[in-house]
Amino acid sequence: MVIIMNPEATSHNIDEVIKAIKSVGLEAKIMEGAQQKIVGVIGDKTKLASVAIDALPGVESSVAISKSYKLASREFHPQSSIIDVDGVKIGGDVPVVMAGPCAVESREQLLKAAQIVKEGGAQFLRGGAYKPRTSPYSFQGLEVEGLKYLAEAREATGLKIVTEVTTVEGIAPVAEYADMLQIGARNMQNFGLLKEVGKCNRPVLLKRGLAATIDEWLNAAEYIMNAGNPNVVLCERGIRTYETYTRNTLDMSAVAAVKHLSHLPIIVDPSHGTGKWRMVKPMALAAIAAGADGLMMEMHPNPARALSDGMQSLTPEHYRAVMTAVNKLSKFMHDENLLTLDEG
Amino acid sequence: MVIIMNPEATSHNIDEVIKAIKSVGLEAKIMEGAQQKIVGVIGDKTKLASVAIDALPGVESSVAISKSYKLASREFHPQSSIIDVDGVKIGGDVPVVMAGPCAVESREQLLKAAQIVKEGGAQFLRGGAYKPRTSPYSFQGLEVEGLKYLAEAREATGLKIVTEVTTVEGIAPVAEYADMLQIGARNMQNFGLLKEVGKCNRPVLLKRGLAATIDEWLNAAEYIMNAGNPNVVLCERGIRTYETYTRNTLDMSAVAAVKHLSHLPIIVDPSHGTGKWRMVKPMALAAIAAGADGLMMEMHPNPARALSDGMQSLTPEHYRAVMTAVNKLSKFMHDENLLTLDEG
Amino acid sequence: MVIIMNPEATSHNIDEVIKAIKSVGLEAKIMEGAQQKIVGVIGDKTKLASVAIDALPGVESSVAISKSYKLASREFHPQSSIIDVDGVKIGGDVPVVMAGPCAVESREQLLKAAQIVKEGGAQFLRGGAYKPRTSPYSFQGLEVEGLKYLAEAREATGLKIVTEVTTVEGIAPVAEYADMLQIGARNMQNFGLLKEVGKCNRPVLLKRGLAATIDEWLNAAEYIMNAGNPNVVLCERGIRTYETYTRNTLDMSAVAAVKHLSHLPIIVDPSHGTGKWRMVKPMALAAIAAGADGLMMEMHPNPARALSDGMQSLTPEHYRAVMTAVNKLSKFMHDENLLTLDEG
Amino acid sequence: MVIIMNPEATSHNIDEVIKAIKSVGLEAKIMEGAQQKIVGVIGDKTKLASVAIDALPGVESSVAISKSYKLASREFHPQSSIIDVDGVKIGGDVPVVMAGPCAVESREQLLKAAQIVKEGGAQFLRGGAYKPRTSPYSFQGLEVEGLKYLAEAREATGLKIVTEVTTVEGIAPVAEYADMLQIGARNMQNFGLLKEVGKCNRPVLLKRGLAATIDEWLNAAEYIMNAGNPNVVLCERGIRTYETYTRNTLDMSAVAAVKHLSHLPIIVDPSHGTGKWRMVKPMALAAIAAGADGLMMEMHPNPARALSDGMQSLTPEHYRAVMTAVNKLSKFMHDENLLTLDEG
Repeated sequence: MVIIMNPEATSHNIDEVIKAIKSVGLEAKIMEGAQQKIVGVIGDKTKLASVAIDALPGVESSVAISKSYKLASREFHPQSSIIDVDGVKIGGDVPVVMAGPCAVESREQLLKAAQIVKEGGAQFLRGGAYKPRTSPYSFQGLEVEGLKYLAEAREATGLKIVTEVTTVEGIAPVAEYADMLQIGARNMQNFGLLKEVGKCNRPVLLKRGLAATIDEWLNAAEYIMNAGNPNVVLCERGIRTYETYTRNTLDMSAVAAVKHLSHLPIIVDPSHGTGKWRMVKPMALAAIAAGADGLMMEMHPNPARALSDGMQSLTPEHYRAVMTAVNKLSKFMHDENLLTLDEG
Repeated sequence: MVIIMNPEATSHNIDEVIKAIKSVGLEAKIMEGAQQKIVGVIGDKTKLASVAIDALPGVESSVAISKSYKLASREFHPQSSIIDVDGVKIGGDVPVVMAGPCAVESREQLLKAAQIVKEGGAQFLRGGAYKPRTSPYSFQGLEVEGLKYLAEAREATGLKIVTEVTTVEGIAPVAEYADMLQIGARNMQNFGLLKEVGKCNRPVLLKRGLAATIDEWLNAAEYIMNAGNPNVVLCERGIRTYETYTRNTLDMSAVAAVKHLSHLPIIVDPSHGTGKWRMVKPMALAAIAAGADGLMMEMHPNPARALSDGMQSLTPEHYRAVMTAVNKLSKFMHDENLLTLDEG
Repeated sequence: MVIIMNPEATSHNIDEVIKAIKSVGLEAKIMEGAQQKIVGVIGDKTKLASVAIDALPGVESSVAISKSYKLASREFHPQSSIIDVDGVKIGGDVPVVMAGPCAVESREQLLKAAQIVKEGGAQFLRGGAYKPRTSPYSFQGLEVEGLKYLAEAREATGLKIVTEVTTVEGIAPVAEYADMLQIGARNMQNFGLLKEVGKCNRPVLLKRGLAATIDEWLNAAEYIMNAGNPNVVLCERGIRTYETYTRNTLDMSAVAAVKHLSHLPIIVDPSHGTGKWRMVKPMALAAIAAGADGLMMEMHPNPARALSDGMQSLTPEHYRAVMTAVNKLSKFMHDENLLTLDEG
Repeated sequence: MVIIMNPEATSHNIDEVIKAIKSVGLEAKIMEGAQQKIVGVIGDKTKLASVAIDALPGVESSVAISKSYKLASREFHPQSSIIDVDGVKIGGDVPVVMAGPCAVESREQLLKAAQIVKEGGAQFLRGGAYKPRTSPYSFQGLEVEGLKYLAEAREATGLKIVTEVTTVEGIAPVAEYADMLQIGARNMQNFGLLKEVGKCNRPVLLKRGLAATIDEWLNAAEYIMNAGNPNVVLCERGIRTYETYTRNTLDMSAVAAVKHLSHLPIIVDPSHGTGKWRMVKPMALAAIAAGADGLMMEMHPNPARALSDGMQSLTPEHYRAVMTAVNKLSKFMHDENLLTLDEG
């Protein structure tokens, strides 16, 4: 941390800042220029949590320099992590694909969707049994009934199941039926939920919050890891910006950023990221080319009858076309070793 | 809802759209121009939740026209609501002030703060016993111990207590000790939590989410009201934008927007809204002039020792100066009847 | 400037950074901790423009600390500036009001508007003769003809004229007819235009760019001042955010921020800031309460016939009501000395 | 356009709205439901520019439906355009690459850079002779001297020259020396400049504004095309969001959006889009996979000595590695026909 003093700060002010830093066992260094004075703090930033340096007289502002997450950081864990979800490896050489409807709507819909997902070559079936919806009057999901259909679909196809958990009470049933727990964008900073899935023995798919910085996102992962669960996969799903043509703005550069800052795998959701099925294919290919470890995509046997997000759902035909292209591109990227990042 | 068809949409496509609209008991009207065709839908939008019109062939896009909330809407409840919190009225002629430290840190700190808050003329004591923090290593609050200090401070001063609830499990203890439950910005779309505080008999202070639209915010209020609790007060606390000088961008216009769209009271939090104690006074006065029903402000007996948010906390001296100015302005606004909105 | 080194940076890397800093006559200081190394730079930041420190091996990132503007800075000019526009003082005890139609549409419309503006008590008539419009097919303004009507309106009413200049070629005619040149939001970083109005002897009203930070805005003022024109007034007019209910998000806190960072006067435009005439009154009052030095508001004799921005234009009746309230509030704020900022 | 009436709108209000629509030769249709009334407008939206429907009594809001650009629209020009820049085709089967330093700094630097750019396989040399900089104290470019070095570099290498024009006065010299004029992000809505380059016979590279919507961007292209110059290429270069880790947020989905909405070619600038050289390679590959018609990248013979943007400049070694990967991927995308968009 670096503390910038006011131009009018007195030497007494500076002494007080140094005293506050030392009071928590940290070291302070002063840099004094003609017009500005800066105090640098060296050591473990977490100790500073108990001192409000910014509020001391004479302080203009402060700048954080070290990261506040450790377990999720590549600095402390240089090797990329591979998360094993009951035999399917995320973060290895082959990108994984999670596909399926936005919501589990009926046994028939889900089993049909699962069949198509399996045939197209994805490894995971997605589908929400608990749906966080903006309006209380929108379809809220089939809940435990939906979870049972998901488990039945796994029996029928061998696909792994990933589904969202929205409440602490929901963790136990979701963990009973699913292979991987999804934390949705709206719950990325639901810290109570993060701590509890951190105590769970299922891998977690952590979606980026609607307006979360990459730093906050990795801190959210840190909550889960710090509670005991190291098996976290990140999912970029678009962020909120002023642009209204797309539902969100897919931050493709987050793939490269996360690869630099963290050892955790990252996948991309072009369905929520764009909100338009027409844009799923180009963004899926872009994600693979950027080095993503996988994709999450919405596919519905009949999007026009979907109870939510129909506009961004692929039809079975589109899904198969996307999968063919994604698989070709993935193989090429790997064979040609084009994915190497950060060279130099 | 208005559905805009592609220029190449066939008459079969349009028939299918109309059929879908009629299938849920709604009425469709076609407007046909030289280059564009539009289908209008009339009736209760909530029925459309089960049809993904946007996914039908030939549809370019759709535009929602009616609002998806009702209980929170001024359209359905033209008269402004006054929320009574154990005798203190929010939404009436006199703005209320909620002040206190960001976090309850100790019995001594809180009782001292409460004394200052009371003397300055505020009606509510604020202070977090459960703190949602970006990093798992930051101070997380004293929890039930903190709640007890808050209750003790109420005994000592007569102030009402408002404090944040972050989990469903936390509702019972918070409701036991506090007069008003606060839903924080990060939990504004924690729908499980909203539904449960909706079943609680305590008034709720609903902070706007970091990147929530006004529409989403009012829908969040709708969740609480739809679950049975009509006593919701909204709190604007700044939104996330590209500007980094301030911690958030305080959306002062939300006061006027909410007054137009909803009957619920709205207060403003200039401490979180700006992140800088120097800006609290001008923004507090601006909020009152804009017609806000109250303020929430952070005050700490010794901001430089605050365990969180010290930089945005007022000192006792600043707090008293702000209260003096706020009270003068409130009285003037009321006496001169300057608050009348929407005339014409 | 503070330079943060990679954890793997070698001592050779650090030496190279120090050499680069010294090569432009600046001083470097190293702070070395267990896991991180930081290099502080002391001296005139403008010298660093010729060294790309960030691109040196081993550098993780850098953080600017000193401001890049000087003439506009309060640090270098502690006393608030008062800008005199042909006898009308902006930045003094009394807020000024600039009102009038978005665009000059006809001689009749403008003269009628000027009469109403004058009677309501404003000091300036606004009205665009050159209109920057998103679409090339929208009304682009009456150009020199419009300027002549503005000058005629000044003769008739004694109001000062402020109008937008959009091109370098337009500066001479606008400066001939108007008392104050307006730089619009879309041209805030049209540096060629800024430099040329900087050579002009007319005061300049500099609107904040649609997505400009306060730092960039003050740097834009610096361009004008550095070219020789010290008479700059800033105008907050809303920034672009994800919120769509309002046309822009009026950043009311910019008033307090600019007052802290700069000595230049700042006024607020609630018409563009909200895009809705209903919100003009509460936001105008809020601006005055926040300490703004004035207001710019759109008023049209018949908003429903306005060639642009009719939705945000006040009718003559609304305008008079807003002016009455604004004048009462301004007087009260001044008499009670409520405007004092930054006390403590 | 669709006009939504207030719930309390009278039938007189509706009659007035219809009269206003008819007064400019358009057709109105009413849709009347239980709680809401809607008026649809059919015909050429540009005619509505002279009526401020939104300001009529009883109107709640209005929604634009048809696009306000035509020449740039795929609707009116279904076939993708290929822009020929003195023999190099942009928008055809092979992506083009524009590379070079941010700024022309010296004859030696530029000629060296041009050599490297040529050897790596790019078709265009980029380099700014006129630099728009946030601070007036930063390096502003070599101006005409820089243009001459660019022309000399073309002689030496056969590369085409693309360089930024920032003022109307600068168009003639830039058009004399360069093959393609670049309009930078800060000038995307400098309408005076757009109109003048529209009268010029050089192709134009139009960068997206810092906070421009895709709709505004295509309208900016419309300004140029409407003035007589059909040869416009768009360049996505990142938009401004709340995220601070990257310099901008590269909106990769803009490639797919523009391909759907317009017939104009679009290229991507991952250097400005991310602000970090480490992220250029993954984002360049992602852009190609998304279907971009080319790339613009910053490369400097010695980034650590760059006068601007050193942090985002590739070294010659990195540049060659990126080009190798980009060329392999482009060929694969083309051979496998993976680029097909909008199938279905």
